[in-house]
Amino acid sequence: MIRFDSDYTQGAHPRILDALVRTNMEQTCAYAEDGYSEEARALIRNACEAPDADVHFLVGGTGTNTTVIAAALRPWEGVICPETGHINVHESGAIESSGHKVVALPQRDGKLPAETAEQFCAAYHADGTKEHMVKPGMIYISQPTEVGTLYSAAELTALKAVCERYGMFLFVDGARLGYGLAADGSDVTLPLLAKTADAFTVGGTKVGALFGEAVVISNAAMKPGFRYMIKQRGNMLAKGRLLGVQFREMFLDGLYFEMGAHAIEAARRLKKIFADAGYPFAADSPTNQQFPILPDAVLEKLSTDFAYSYWNRYDENSSVVRFCTSWATTDEELDALEAALPTLAG
Amino acid sequence: MIRFDSDYTQGAHPRILDALVRTNMEQTCAYAEDGYSEEARALIRNACEAPDADVHFLVGGTGTNTTVIAAALRPWEGVICPETGHINVHESGAIESSGHKVVALPQRDGKLPAETAEQFCAAYHADGTKEHMVKPGMIYISQPTEVGTLYSAAELTALKAVCERYGMFLFVDGARLGYGLAADGSDVTLPLLAKTADAFTVGGTKVGALFGEAVVISNAAMKPGFRYMIKQRGNMLAKGRLLGVQFREMFLDGLYFEMGAHAIEAARRLKKIFADAGYPFAADSPTNQQFPILPDAVLEKLSTDFAYSYWNRYDENSSVVRFCTSWATTDEELDALEAALPTLAG
Amino acid sequence: MIRFDSDYTQGAHPRILDALVRTNMEQTCAYAEDGYSEEARALIRNACEAPDADVHFLVGGTGTNTTVIAAALRPWEGVICPETGHINVHESGAIESSGHKVVALPQRDGKLPAETAEQFCAAYHADGTKEHMVKPGMIYISQPTEVGTLYSAAELTALKAVCERYGMFLFVDGARLGYGLAADGSDVTLPLLAKTADAFTVGGTKVGALFGEAVVISNAAMKPGFRYMIKQRGNMLAKGRLLGVQFREMFLDGLYFEMGAHAIEAARRLKKIFADAGYPFAADSPTNQQFPILPDAVLEKLSTDFAYSYWNRYDENSSVVRFCTSWATTDEELDALEAALPTLAG
Amino acid sequence: MIRFDSDYTQGAHPRILDALVRTNMEQTCAYAEDGYSEEARALIRNACEAPDADVHFLVGGTGTNTTVIAAALRPWEGVICPETGHINVHESGAIESSGHKVVALPQRDGKLPAETAEQFCAAYHADGTKEHMVKPGMIYISQPTEVGTLYSAAELTALKAVCERYGMFLFVDGARLGYGLAADGSDVTLPLLAKTADAFTVGGTKVGALFGEAVVISNAAMKPGFRYMIKQRGNMLAKGRLLGVQFREMFLDGLYFEMGAHAIEAARRLKKIFADAGYPFAADSPTNQQFPILPDAVLEKLSTDFAYSYWNRYDENSSVVRFCTSWATTDEELDALEAALPTLAG
Repeated sequence: MIRFDSDYTQGAHPRILDALVRTNMEQTCAYAEDGYSEEARALIRNACEAPDADVHFLVGGTGTNTTVIAAALRPWEGVICPETGHINVHESGAIESSGHKVVALPQRDGKLPAETAEQFCAAYHADGTKEHMVKPGMIYISQPTEVGTLYSAAELTALKAVCERYGMFLFVDGARLGYGLAADGSDVTLPLLAKTADAFTVGGTKVGALFGEAVVISNAAMKPGFRYMIKQRGNMLAKGRLLGVQFREMFLDGLYFEMGAHAIEAARRLKKIFADAGYPFAADSPTNQQFPILPDAVLEKLSTDFAYSYWNRYDENSSVVRFCTSWATTDEELDALEAALPTLAG
Repeated sequence: MIRFDSDYTQGAHPRILDALVRTNMEQTCAYAEDGYSEEARALIRNACEAPDADVHFLVGGTGTNTTVIAAALRPWEGVICPETGHINVHESGAIESSGHKVVALPQRDGKLPAETAEQFCAAYHADGTKEHMVKPGMIYISQPTEVGTLYSAAELTALKAVCERYGMFLFVDGARLGYGLAADGSDVTLPLLAKTADAFTVGGTKVGALFGEAVVISNAAMKPGFRYMIKQRGNMLAKGRLLGVQFREMFLDGLYFEMGAHAIEAARRLKKIFADAGYPFAADSPTNQQFPILPDAVLEKLSTDFAYSYWNRYDENSSVVRFCTSWATTDEELDALEAALPTLAG
Repeated sequence: MIRFDSDYTQGAHPRILDALVRTNMEQTCAYAEDGYSEEARALIRNACEAPDADVHFLVGGTGTNTTVIAAALRPWEGVICPETGHINVHESGAIESSGHKVVALPQRDGKLPAETAEQFCAAYHADGTKEHMVKPGMIYISQPTEVGTLYSAAELTALKAVCERYGMFLFVDGARLGYGLAADGSDVTLPLLAKTADAFTVGGTKVGALFGEAVVISNAAMKPGFRYMIKQRGNMLAKGRLLGVQFREMFLDGLYFEMGAHAIEAARRLKKIFADAGYPFAADSPTNQQFPILPDAVLEKLSTDFAYSYWNRYDENSSVVRFCTSWATTDEELDALEAALPTLAG
Repeated sequence: MIRFDSDYTQGAHPRILDALVRTNMEQTCAYAEDGYSEEARALIRNACEAPDADVHFLVGGTGTNTTVIAAALRPWEGVICPETGHINVHESGAIESSGHKVVALPQRDGKLPAETAEQFCAAYHADGTKEHMVKPGMIYISQPTEVGTLYSAAELTALKAVCERYGMFLFVDGARLGYGLAADGSDVTLPLLAKTADAFTVGGTKVGALFGEAVVISNAAMKPGFRYMIKQRGNMLAKGRLLGVQFREMFLDGLYFEMGAHAIEAARRLKKIFADAGYPFAADSPTNQQFPILPDAVLEKLSTDFAYSYWNRYDENSSVVRFCTSWATTDEELDALEAALPTLAG
């Protein structure tokens, strides 16, 4: 079975695992206050050109989103996101479990258009009964989005302007950020994110680490109490240096960016394999998640040897599915897929 | 610096890390639904002689306690614990953040006496205004306790009887369970825990794993919805097989018990080192946490080369401190301590 | 200023206020355990033909909805409602503040069609990743709806069938129930509600009481702990007999139904006034809330002497507004409106 | 049955009820934005000599405490109170249900000594593991306390100094404030409270209103979002003017203070009745709650005609009980008690 169903099917990039092995029997203090974690924080601050940012390491994506959002919002505030947002759909109600409403707005290509947010906020603040409605306190988006698309620098800046106009934080979930940074034509960089977002994450779990998400907080108003919150929300790793060691390795000499580039190159070929065989795509994704539309008969045939994610029905005879590449995708895996894929013409 | 300040100063036992290295590039499905996790669950069920128990793998201790407690209790219920209980003192309000009161009762040697729980519950249920007070829905204890002591089988059984009398769950936090199972004279075994507790945990983080806590749920009433809760509380690891691989290795041929026994042997020697030098102990701990009472001058001298945890002031000139052994403690470390420790006589 | 903006612009029906005055200096025990509350509970059980139902009295609508929903759901469950549902729009995130997601589904005429709920639940339970999505545990609707429309007995029964199929509770918010029961052609009665809904409310605040909502719980699974929850959610009135005295008066000899009928008769005339003047309606409401579409110029003219609720813009020159009648609406008020309203023809 | 069991056994003071009757059929806008509420707010600001204070009206005590505390604290903060504090004992876990730990400290005469709070906070902030413990963000006390005692101005000022030293709010629960203000020798006034506390409440429910608590917020940091919170926590009365009308009546010409004085005078006589008969008191209360120690045989005899609250067992043959006076206590009731009470001598 060759798995294209997600980008977390393997363990860690060998260099990252080596770093864990190499440091395994060293004794350090706990809770990410060790030297490796300190170094990793410095490297990330440096990569972000954000010397004043706070950098924290958490274990997983859902916990990280919940921690950031619950730490930032007051109890009467909610978080705006596109209706396809991960926090709205696939986190088992984690945000709501922390007491906050997720305010889902219409999306376009998986993204929240700034004008949609603007209209919502303008209408909200003009409404005489607004005290009876959750106050929008934050915009949450992800880069790349759930359907692999990317915000441009201009789109991010426009969202930030809406946030400033209405007193909201901008939070960018970068669970797959490495794949977005490496995508063709993307003009969003770490320094831009650090400047534009009040907080954003640099995902490790889906980009080559065993696990781990780095949170970069630029806005001083979001900094107080954050370590308390990590602990309270169950995301403070006792052996915090495991996170430090991994992120240090990823940011020491560009490994994070290399892993991203690898997956994008693989995605380009994956895309070509499907396109050459005559299959269209449900979305035009420049990142590592691809959404071909395949006949159900083809899917059935593929499924004996290949794992993919079922997305949704397209028409009576075909479906949208997701194939992911990652830092670990090999030429052999793609060769095998190419060989196995029947052409649309049949 | 030789660290005795906690039992999570290193990474993982080499065999556990090897297992992660060995399986690193295998592709598996996510969220602990892979074969390794399935095998690990079966091994733990077997070790517990509890074929019907549900076994789940979570990342860290605080998240695990919160998930178990929040999943079990109804919103009007609280959880009883000894006032020294980890959930009452050292989890940054995690339980309360899930909406439940921690009802702290007086402790004896770090333990909750069954008669204390009984008296509290009897008084509660006899009180005409009980609807204005949080209903006790669970007793939480840890084995070993925060001060290294152990419940006997009889004490656990007595607490269970109180739970049955008043309609409460019994939950045992086994963050350091391996060290408790191996302690001299302990009559509490995994099968006894599986039979007596409605749920308990088998800690990995402090007993040789990189990280990870196994939850064993015997009571059918606590089983529904648990995987939703793990996800919602941010403790479901995407690469869940990392937990499966580790716990499989620990329970394949007794490694978990060996690691426990190693730490206990080291603790015996540690105890002797302090005793031979003439220092008394604040508590009589049969497990891997030892609480010698040392003159402040001695502590200052030790602190250049040894890390320990400050516990509390004992008198004007001396303090209670914590020295931990673990699966990783070496003879060399203990030799060094012995050599460095001045005798009380000076 | 004559107010048609809501149905809670006055105090209480004189008979209800008289009952409070009459009993004012009597001494009773607290927290709705007095004789008046007991009698009121019996009268409501009787009116519902539900001798086994639990009946509780709470202060306000938002608190009541939150208490019922939070008491019923487990932490991993959410509540389905039509996107226009009061809990989704106008309760300041109260439900989410109790930890539960409000799952808003498309509405038709303010109602949740059973087939919409069915499709959602079928898709949910067929989804392989459902553990990552909030589990639907309840359907919440209101009778009448936010736009004054009514569910038929058949529609309620169909929703109940969906609930039974997927293991959910059906909860009907009857904040304006009195106006629904009295509406022309409604076939939904108190006994039908008690039989079909697992819990429903009988609103007092908007139907002639000073304040107060009665909760009728038919399903035994929703009964435990409810009084604890009322207290915890801040809705247990110390002088609970104030609720008992009011509901007793309303259900002693049909006053609740009379007040409903009065408002409906007034609504019929209100409707005619607008229709006769040539104005259309945004919705065809058989209850006490009417939604005429009026030119902005007319609205401006009216607003010097009449209060109404602005609903939404209809087109460039006209808007949808809400005019409410109530138990207190007088012929004189309607005469004044009729006299002041310019005809569309001008 | 003559009830001394609480101070909320009757409805409202006749003048307050008259005001409700008089204004009953007036039409006003909702949610305490009417003229009566505005006037009441101005009168209270005036009585507090706090022209910049925000004044809000809520329905009940538990809801008010929860709203104030949850609005003020960040999620990682808890609220300190004496172990006998109402929020710790008798609110069914309401504070915890909003996510915050109640940190109960030892009390003296029902009060939290400033030095106790100081020591706790100093130790907390000196603790290297403080991030693992809930951060104290507020001190909650009540005036009078649960056992009828009073803080002096000096004691309040000392607590405020602790709050300022450690960055905490001081919140005073005045559910029975009227009885405290009128007590012999009390030097705590409304202006002093407005100056010393960051927020405090002026209780109506137990001091002559049908229901209602006024919240006075002096500290600007506690003002934002408060009306959202009232709504979200289910304490915003639709017919908010009912609260405005009552508090306006109470503060128009000193009725609130008169009612307090009446109860204190009655308490003085009640005290004398017990003392003259030879019974001691468990606490020396200068307010309307008295705690005589009575032989069980006397209690049994009294209980056929008098209601009181059972407090706790004193010794084998006698118990501490609570007798309350209130704005409504009559000479006749006290005469009856005096006549019925056997002397200790028998």
